[in-house]
Amino acid sequence: MQAISNHKVVVLKEKGVTLPKGFNAGGMNCGIKKGKLDLGYIVSEVPATAAGVYTTNIFQAAPLVVTQESIAKEHKIQAVLVNSGNANACTGEQGLKDASTMQKAFANELGIPEHLVAVTATGVIGELLPMEKINPGIGQILQAENEAEENFIQAILTTDTAVKHIAVQTQIDGKTVSIGGAAKGSGMIHPNMATMLGFITTDANIAHEDLLFALKEVTNQTFNMITVDGDTSTNDMVLVMANGLAENNLLTKDHPDWDGFVTGLKIVSEELAKKIARDGEGATKLIEVTVEGAQNQKDASIVGKSIISSSLVKTAIFGTDANWGRIVTAIGYSGVQIQPNAIKVAIGPYQVFENGLPCPFDEAEVKNYLEQETIKIFVELNLGNHSATAWGCDLTYDYVKINGSYRT
Amino acid sequence: MQAISNHKVVVLKEKGVTLPKGFNAGGMNCGIKKGKLDLGYIVSEVPATAAGVYTTNIFQAAPLVVTQESIAKEHKIQAVLVNSGNANACTGEQGLKDASTMQKAFANELGIPEHLVAVTATGVIGELLPMEKINPGIGQILQAENEAEENFIQAILTTDTAVKHIAVQTQIDGKTVSIGGAAKGSGMIHPNMATMLGFITTDANIAHEDLLFALKEVTNQTFNMITVDGDTSTNDMVLVMANGLAENNLLTKDHPDWDGFVTGLKIVSEELAKKIARDGEGATKLIEVTVEGAQNQKDASIVGKSIISSSLVKTAIFGTDANWGRIVTAIGYSGVQIQPNAIKVAIGPYQVFENGLPCPFDEAEVKNYLEQETIKIFVELNLGNHSATAWGCDLTYDYVKINGSYRT
Repeated sequence: MQAISNHKVVVLKEKGVTLPKGFNAGGMNCGIKKGKLDLGYIVSEVPATAAGVYTTNIFQAAPLVVTQESIAKEHKIQAVLVNSGNANACTGEQGLKDASTMQKAFANELGIPEHLVAVTATGVIGELLPMEKINPGIGQILQAENEAEENFIQAILTTDTAVKHIAVQTQIDGKTVSIGGAAKGSGMIHPNMATMLGFITTDANIAHEDLLFALKEVTNQTFNMITVDGDTSTNDMVLVMANGLAENNLLTKDHPDWDGFVTGLKIVSEELAKKIARDGEGATKLIEVTVEGAQNQKDASIVGKSIISSSLVKTAIFGTDANWGRIVTAIGYSGVQIQPNAIKVAIGPYQVFENGLPCPFDEAEVKNYLEQETIKIFVELNLGNHSATAWGCDLTYDYVKINGSYRT
Repeated sequence: MQAISNHKVVVLKEKGVTLPKGFNAGGMNCGIKKGKLDLGYIVSEVPATAAGVYTTNIFQAAPLVVTQESIAKEHKIQAVLVNSGNANACTGEQGLKDASTMQKAFANELGIPEHLVAVTATGVIGELLPMEKINPGIGQILQAENEAEENFIQAILTTDTAVKHIAVQTQIDGKTVSIGGAAKGSGMIHPNMATMLGFITTDANIAHEDLLFALKEVTNQTFNMITVDGDTSTNDMVLVMANGLAENNLLTKDHPDWDGFVTGLKIVSEELAKKIARDGEGATKLIEVTVEGAQNQKDASIVGKSIISSSLVKTAIFGTDANWGRIVTAIGYSGVQIQPNAIKVAIGPYQVFENGLPCPFDEAEVKNYLEQETIKIFVELNLGNHSATAWGCDLTYDYVKINGSYRT
């Protein structure tokens, strides 16, 4: 996290997407999954300026195609409908039709134009949506008993073991502006834009281009800096809705409170990203790798992601083994031009590698450090002044168990 | 494997590096490891033309530095000395000195110039070699009781569960030319040029440039097309020694029997590479991915390696789950420009994806196929006529077990 500038941003860990003014959310079980919520929504009282970032996987899922086309019309949405348990990916023409059908049906329930509804999905790839369950679900989802943010954050989960939400508040033009977020993601996580779904709401008054600019900048430093298994999903998406109900003057990059908004957006995104990494399939630990002293931002990111993606580093940390040689190896094959003798590596407070050589350290102490739930690795490249932080998780028996039998 | 041209190449699965004329090999336990052989050698009766390919990891281990410098002098070596249990990597100046000391000591024992001895190592990174054990070992290793190819192929192993060797014979100028190979490798395997060590001997008479050309071409299609865990080691090396004792006319690219030699070299390299992939840490299955219809060779390789590197594909195959969606996802994020609707994917004889949609298949039949020890995946991109094959292994509980506790 960069310094928070002069803007006071208050973090509200227990809050989420319904903290900003004018947003409601809910969820229900429509029968895609057994006994778990599988259909969720967010609705704004008024149309909200929208910006999204989407997976770079060529096999982009049907709902993402539909959502992108809709947002392109006037860069606004008023509602999001999400199903879990079925990704509606690799489902051809029928998949596109089903995504459109969901969009239309929910727009009808709300009495708004269909292009103001974003649809998205997460779950198994290559199976058609069970529309005979989803259609009746959409007809009932707005009933009062389904309305609760807790239902929404539950309804978007797949193999996740925990809900993921946060909110912040800052002042813009003397008005309190809230930013709330919810996310899911546990496997097939290597976002370039992972299945990772992120939903961020805000009552800020901001134009589309500026919202998209802020989202892209923040996503590259947060959601795109996590990995669970190196697999980039077909369904990744982060969507921000800004409904303007905070009534600040239109927020632009020149606005004196711009930094406060971006900082708030970054805190929300980083917290959601870290929650996804910590809840990686089978994971017992969050790993945070900070790379400093790079010649440029890209190099710092590549080195960080190379370490966080290494199966050998991930298993060593699961085994509480201070195997720094695997960290150094991952730096060495990252493709970034570095100077082997200039590098320093630390595991938590323990320096383990310097001047091309291992540092003496107390194995028992470092092993004790590695028993913690958050493991920090620091790399100093000593080549410049750029830095990046990446997040991931350990690789465990349970990852193999979960993924050896996910579908059948 | 490509067609074998008109050149008859006879495969001798039980033979290895001592089949070619004039090569001896041996191994012993010098005390680096407990109760297992850890020091091995190959010696040629006469200096042999040498060519090597080495890891692209920036942290290249000390013995590789010493070996490359030595081979550069006259492109010849007469002997190779290998230790396992300690990689002599990230060991700074002392590591380089130790590698040189090993080289000199073995050259003394043999009564040959030191630059004719190649040294290499595999094992833990970042610990200094126990020279107090290795030096006496070098003094004893040439004793008759240590001489046996079986000792050599054992002495180079680390977490490997099986020895890896093969030999072939072909005719050049009416002379029988033999090519023998031995390799080790089980973890930290993602060669660009893994720890993977390959040793190939031949009695062919061939010039250095042509030997290196053939080695590079063959390595790119074999050793560089395997992955176990995506981690490229600091110690990877494949070394070929050609001592000329078959007495064929000097082999060049224009020689009518060139193809036979290269085919033989490829069979040896491919077999060793596949043995490494099958013996990947914790692996129960060899996975072979063949990509056809690519616009160029590089695209075919990238797609093949993307699939073979996917933790989700690897765990699905461990779990005998026909989860083709993960294969398609890995194609989609490979970075290669493909046409989603043009692609076909098959698991063994079962077509699972075509025209952008899943094909109907009998789950029980495919699950039964996935119970086998060798799993073949076929991808047709339908964009051109280039192809590539990549090899890997499943990701299992035992991979996590082995790597959660390798060092301590």
